[in-house]
Amino acid sequence: MNRFGNIFTLTSFGESHGPALGGVIDGVPSGFVIDTERIQQEADRRRPGSTRLGTGRREPDRVELLSGIHERVTLGSPIGFIIRNTDHHPADYTEMQRLYRPSHADYTYEAKYGLRDWRGGGRSSARETTSRIVAGAVARQILEAASDIRIYAYTSAIGRATLPEGTEPDYTYIYKSSVRCPVSGAAEQSMISEIEEARRQGDSVGGAVSCIISGVPAGLGEPLAGKLQAMLGAAILSIPAVKGWEYGMGMHAARARGSEVADLFEPETTPLRTLTNHSGGIQGGISNGADIYFRVAFKPAPTMMRDLPAVDRDGHAATLHGKGRHDPCVVPRAVSVVEAMTCMTMLDALLLHRAGQLRELR
Amino acid sequence: MNRFGNIFTLTSFGESHGPALGGVIDGVPSGFVIDTERIQQEADRRRPGSTRLGTGRREPDRVELLSGIHERVTLGSPIGFIIRNTDHHPADYTEMQRLYRPSHADYTYEAKYGLRDWRGGGRSSARETTSRIVAGAVARQILEAASDIRIYAYTSAIGRATLPEGTEPDYTYIYKSSVRCPVSGAAEQSMISEIEEARRQGDSVGGAVSCIISGVPAGLGEPLAGKLQAMLGAAILSIPAVKGWEYGMGMHAARARGSEVADLFEPETTPLRTLTNHSGGIQGGISNGADIYFRVAFKPAPTMMRDLPAVDRDGHAATLHGKGRHDPCVVPRAVSVVEAMTCMTMLDALLLHRAGQLRELR
Amino acid sequence: MNRFGNIFTLTSFGESHGPALGGVIDGVPSGFVIDTERIQQEADRRRPGSTRLGTGRREPDRVELLSGIHERVTLGSPIGFIIRNTDHHPADYTEMQRLYRPSHADYTYEAKYGLRDWRGGGRSSARETTSRIVAGAVARQILEAASDIRIYAYTSAIGRATLPEGTEPDYTYIYKSSVRCPVSGAAEQSMISEIEEARRQGDSVGGAVSCIISGVPAGLGEPLAGKLQAMLGAAILSIPAVKGWEYGMGMHAARARGSEVADLFEPETTPLRTLTNHSGGIQGGISNGADIYFRVAFKPAPTMMRDLPAVDRDGHAATLHGKGRHDPCVVPRAVSVVEAMTCMTMLDALLLHRAGQLRELR
Amino acid sequence: MNRFGNIFTLTSFGESHGPALGGVIDGVPSGFVIDTERIQQEADRRRPGSTRLGTGRREPDRVELLSGIHERVTLGSPIGFIIRNTDHHPADYTEMQRLYRPSHADYTYEAKYGLRDWRGGGRSSARETTSRIVAGAVARQILEAASDIRIYAYTSAIGRATLPEGTEPDYTYIYKSSVRCPVSGAAEQSMISEIEEARRQGDSVGGAVSCIISGVPAGLGEPLAGKLQAMLGAAILSIPAVKGWEYGMGMHAARARGSEVADLFEPETTPLRTLTNHSGGIQGGISNGADIYFRVAFKPAPTMMRDLPAVDRDGHAATLHGKGRHDPCVVPRAVSVVEAMTCMTMLDALLLHRAGQLRELR
Repeated sequence: MNRFGNIFTLTSFGESHGPALGGVIDGVPSGFVIDTERIQQEADRRRPGSTRLGTGRREPDRVELLSGIHERVTLGSPIGFIIRNTDHHPADYTEMQRLYRPSHADYTYEAKYGLRDWRGGGRSSARETTSRIVAGAVARQILEAASDIRIYAYTSAIGRATLPEGTEPDYTYIYKSSVRCPVSGAAEQSMISEIEEARRQGDSVGGAVSCIISGVPAGLGEPLAGKLQAMLGAAILSIPAVKGWEYGMGMHAARARGSEVADLFEPETTPLRTLTNHSGGIQGGISNGADIYFRVAFKPAPTMMRDLPAVDRDGHAATLHGKGRHDPCVVPRAVSVVEAMTCMTMLDALLLHRAGQLRELR
Repeated sequence: MNRFGNIFTLTSFGESHGPALGGVIDGVPSGFVIDTERIQQEADRRRPGSTRLGTGRREPDRVELLSGIHERVTLGSPIGFIIRNTDHHPADYTEMQRLYRPSHADYTYEAKYGLRDWRGGGRSSARETTSRIVAGAVARQILEAASDIRIYAYTSAIGRATLPEGTEPDYTYIYKSSVRCPVSGAAEQSMISEIEEARRQGDSVGGAVSCIISGVPAGLGEPLAGKLQAMLGAAILSIPAVKGWEYGMGMHAARARGSEVADLFEPETTPLRTLTNHSGGIQGGISNGADIYFRVAFKPAPTMMRDLPAVDRDGHAATLHGKGRHDPCVVPRAVSVVEAMTCMTMLDALLLHRAGQLRELR
Repeated sequence: MNRFGNIFTLTSFGESHGPALGGVIDGVPSGFVIDTERIQQEADRRRPGSTRLGTGRREPDRVELLSGIHERVTLGSPIGFIIRNTDHHPADYTEMQRLYRPSHADYTYEAKYGLRDWRGGGRSSARETTSRIVAGAVARQILEAASDIRIYAYTSAIGRATLPEGTEPDYTYIYKSSVRCPVSGAAEQSMISEIEEARRQGDSVGGAVSCIISGVPAGLGEPLAGKLQAMLGAAILSIPAVKGWEYGMGMHAARARGSEVADLFEPETTPLRTLTNHSGGIQGGISNGADIYFRVAFKPAPTMMRDLPAVDRDGHAATLHGKGRHDPCVVPRAVSVVEAMTCMTMLDALLLHRAGQLRELR
Repeated sequence: MNRFGNIFTLTSFGESHGPALGGVIDGVPSGFVIDTERIQQEADRRRPGSTRLGTGRREPDRVELLSGIHERVTLGSPIGFIIRNTDHHPADYTEMQRLYRPSHADYTYEAKYGLRDWRGGGRSSARETTSRIVAGAVARQILEAASDIRIYAYTSAIGRATLPEGTEPDYTYIYKSSVRCPVSGAAEQSMISEIEEARRQGDSVGGAVSCIISGVPAGLGEPLAGKLQAMLGAAILSIPAVKGWEYGMGMHAARARGSEVADLFEPETTPLRTLTNHSGGIQGGISNGADIYFRVAFKPAPTMMRDLPAVDRDGHAATLHGKGRHDPCVVPRAVSVVEAMTCMTMLDALLLHRAGQLRELR
């Protein structure tokens, strides 16, 4: 179950404090030029130290590609890769061996497996997402070469600071912003303030990420279990700390009237367009050519800089000392992960769709 | 891609106006007594005519089980089943052959497949969900016999009528309520009023369904792609008209502080409990023994009783005449579908977990 | 695990003496004209009464297609189908309720599932293969329309009667021959004699089926687990009574020298051909454009017309009375099943290959 | 498609002359002690230089385990591993860049992917099987701890030298024998002579490997697509150079009479045994508790020490100079690969079976 996707797949491995993490990307079409520098850049963006506001930890996260690419071109064979873990500080984690941290996976992993890797979050650590970034970066380059599909995610809320309705995102600004806000100015400043206030208080804060997928041809997605929203939702809900996913009109749909939200077609357009896009670019599980957009909510990290009541493995009360270096807000770093999962899912949908288009042959 | 699940799976088939729909339920453990009457009852609940407020269509939806059960007991072999379509009214749908209805899958299916079954919604019709009800009803009976897991879904909002925060649901009332409201009284009346007002106006209205899963042992769910929330979210997002899915604190997580929402353990409890349940019963993708709860938003049906601007297959403006018999609110009927998908997913998670528990053997 | 294939898949159901058997064919490309009469004809060929030499049982095996095809054209949605069981004779089988027949699946099914459907072979009966014939017939028609791939299987041995080395098969004769021998004359007569002798003695006899796949483009098959020979072998080894599968030079490879069996290329040919075809049309798991050919061995049916020592469910000695109507040789009827599995596998390989050919888009 | 298995899975990667090969083993049950030295030993056995008669190449093949095991115990998380390629000699292979070797995958890979890694066999090289050895070694240790299942493969034929019918294999001798013959003496000597003769002549020779699986409980294997023989056959047919697979009475079944080969039960045995084992331990796809045995034929390697006519990429005649270091017989080294694939498959079958055994819970 450590595998994402149907045709374009990532099978990943690695504990946060083991020797390395990595994965195998399979279903990579042959003949695509891959810029390995861009893969490294995308991995760098997710690093804890990559935003001014994040934790002080500096993990180099050097991506080592081991197969599947020869003379810069994909061979059609799987791309194996590893990223060494270099920043072990087991000393910071010794008390974790006997404690269950609140709202962490310590207890549930131990309930499931009978034991756990207590050196950090093991497999449940967000560090695992680095492998997804690598696979997403490969998918993005193939999408760019083979289609018009482009994918941008950005922070749309941190705590009480929310991007005003109707803000036009500037995609070139996202990675210039320490919080991955797509516009400079007041909204970005409020987001930064939310994080800094949480940090001063030894607390953490949640947020939301929005994502826009443009250039999608009509026809991607499969009926039923393969509906595009189910594939995208499952991919995003597998990211640590996500508590909800909505697309198009989203949770507001519950309050809406059909007459307000039907997307009427614009007659005489080729390909056919709609006048509005309440649907979020998907009808019946299949893309209609309009932009796909969705929104994800992240909970605040349960690890904080303050002491927390915990229990030990025998159920006795204990105290978790907040001495580690913890990021007060995971959202800015999660933006890359949302993008990566979306890139992987859209390429997978494109390949699935192609597999069914046999009639072209005749 | 017409297949749900990993070990306990449903592969379904059927167009809304073809001869029949049905499916194959595979991965059914052997030796379980199945009450086939209960399966039929659950299918009846989803029928269009099953709620006082729904459409006048009466489809008997007789479930015919064809294999996998012998002398009332599961054999371990797949359960094949069909439900004949008896209420064909192709005359109602003739204009659909040349029209694309707004916010329907007519255009996207044709973009994908180059043709479509224009007799109704084809594969994208909500009628497809009857097969899910059957598989869910089988899963529910196995869950009841093999575990303490119990699953209840109910309507928590219709349009502006929302179940008040903190309402204690009465599970015995849900299917007595025509709107599947879990309490009688003002809230239920407001929900009914929302639907009746929409009907009077020839309009439709959205809503929300909540679901509670109790009796879950700690340890269900797999890391990464198999996280319990990703499995549940994907299952629910595949239901027609769903626009968003959230669990635990849900979309509100974006505004929260870590100190407010960490679920502290209650020391000296066996199995270990938490004092609060903001997490919604899942940590790191794995159940922690607390109740799992989630909420789903449904959009208002795009088919209404009023005329709507549409386009024909050549992109020319046309009018869709609202003469059919359409349900002003799909939410009450969707409650059963949410329950069914949840039953299937929880049994699948239970079987997946068991597959990995080899150490018990030693 | 009642599912065959990766993209073009059959999920089947049905016990031999339950109400019906059937399945769901998923991954069917849209826009293909399907001749449903031909599907029925292929199902008829497998029937017990279809060959002069077979059992006297006459099961009509009427195939009822329930979805996925509209106005004779595939919709891209799954094809559900059923075949009613009409020839129940539970009386013939009552002793089976308490007996385990030698070399049957009675004991193993009960060991696995704790119970079994004792009315005939249940799920292990060869009757299950009727569903495969239906899916194979659909696959064949799509292959014929979309490619040059053509598939012919025929009986190459029955007991001691073996088709002489170098016999040129006449594909038009196969289904004229009661034993599915591809040539008339002495070889066919010997095969018939083997069966008739076995019948006279109340015994059964084994045999072999050969299969030739022509018109295969170079490039089908995937490396490693998806090697074309692994896909074909797995498909064929799942047919009841098969004990071995070999392709190209087959089991004789063990005795061969590399210098004798290397298939040298024929220079200046386009597409490139080889002078010989010891390899059987596959190199490194991928088709090279030459004919693929393989051979399958079937064991003699363990159910005979004579009394056999058996045991009852408590392990006590018992006698199985050979009073049923049993086919002395399953091989002639198995020819259609080998063809069907091969058709399904080759279409699946074609679709898998297409899924990876994204570079064509650019 | 670079993935083996259903629950216990190996997803592998790596070209023969790229930086490394490796894989991800997923579905590993938690809590098992793993002896990593034994994994290395099994990998060493497959090395080209591991048998006296093999090629002179010495590839250290150091297995580096990167995750999934902590303090010698499996965590339940995936085991990622790599093996660096250290013995690059691209100079030996430069002519391969423009040549298609006869009976190799050069042409078919290029036909499929439009390009290939010409530095050696790329993904089609037998070197790929090292990853399978690692996964098989993990599976074997889990099988040993959790079941009585034991798996032994050995060379049963090399060219004309065949192990006499009825030879009792001495499992402790297999890896002492340079040809993996299970008995010392005349048979082993003949096998060695076959290889040495082929080497002297610059030729190569084929052979056969037999495998015995003992201690299998009745009930493993799934009906239809998951039949144990189909799972085993597919696993073995994916090994490079395999041309055929047979189990139990095998290809001889074609000549047999039912009365000769029915495996009669031995009354009053618990668990129930059969007097003979023509079936090879499997009935209806499910193990019956008797030993499973099968036999595999390997073709002679198409790369020899002599010059061979080849063609270049434009189809012009060319000569392949036999200057490399080539193994005259792959069979002794293939024995470990057959064992590894069998270990993986049997553990997978055990886990699949467990997933369905829910009734135990009640």
